[in-house]
Amino acid sequence: MRADWSQQRCSMARGIDAIGDPWVLLILRESLSGVRRFDDLREKLGIADNILADRLKRMVQAGLLAKQPYQDGRRTRHAYHPTEAARDALPVLHAFSVWSTKHAPTANGVEQHVVIVCRSCGAESATGESCSSCGERLTTATTAWVKPSSPDRVPVPLAADD
Amino acid sequence: MRADWSQQRCSMARGIDAIGDPWVLLILRESLSGVRRFDDLREKLGIADNILADRLKRMVQAGLLAKQPYQDGRRTRHAYHPTEAARDALPVLHAFSVWSTKHAPTANGVEQHVVIVCRSCGAESATGESCSSCGERLTTATTAWVKPSSPDRVPVPLAADD
Repeated sequence: MRADWSQQRCSMARGIDAIGDPWVLLILRESLSGVRRFDDLREKLGIADNILADRLKRMVQAGLLAKQPYQDGRRTRHAYHPTEAARDALPVLHAFSVWSTKHAPTANGVEQHVVIVCRSCGAESATGESCSSCGERLTTATTAWVKPSSPDRVPVPLAADD
Repeated sequence: MRADWSQQRCSMARGIDAIGDPWVLLILRESLSGVRRFDDLREKLGIADNILADRLKRMVQAGLLAKQPYQDGRRTRHAYHPTEAARDALPVLHAFSVWSTKHAPTANGVEQHVVIVCRSCGAESATGESCSSCGERLTTATTAWVKPSSPDRVPVPLAADD
């Protein structure tokens, strides 16, 4: 366990405190890709039930996710929608991706990374905050991802405000 | 404990695996600011000896820090110098800072954040990858920080290649 950094004067430390947890970052990745339901998050992430429940609870408390009820047959379940704070974490995810594309290739040498596509100009961006081709700011509204796991290599727009 | 994500096909997961640890990120912050020695890192971070030793060892193994001997009286000690991989993590640190400046203010309401200063144009940048004023890419060579803890508010250039 580390100390609580949420009241540090350094904004880097506060940001790391709020969203610098590895599982939180991967849940944000799925959330910005449009995954809303507990079972779908569990399947995508290969995460244990109790860890996922813990992180979702914390993320709702921290204002990163909004819990919304939906009907599953007779049962009421909850979907987790990304808030503005979650959507604004996109440059953090992109920064990790850009860094590892250069510095943490896979051991088998096969080049695999998330392709960041700017929806304004259609180009693949080599940078994550603004498009390296046209300069457009990369937000959930202007970005699509080609995930390495995508068989057809089609860019999928990120989840719009919902 | 979570699984090893270093061989995941997703570049975000690999980046999070390599540098997504809270202490590693704060050690990188200090390293890019020019802090090289064990005792200085310990003092700046308020970190326990065993945790700092563990993270430094991992970071040397991962190619983030290079260990260099220096003389301290009759003793040979080691300094930890940031590699290119460490310097390229700057946009990750900046992304956390930009996010928390908007979404994780301190509880007392006092606006406190690391000011990112572009050394090319001298402006404060509101973005972390490229300067929001002149567009220059923000690297350790082109960036200075005004830390909230700095009493005189003078921008300090990041550590040059050494």
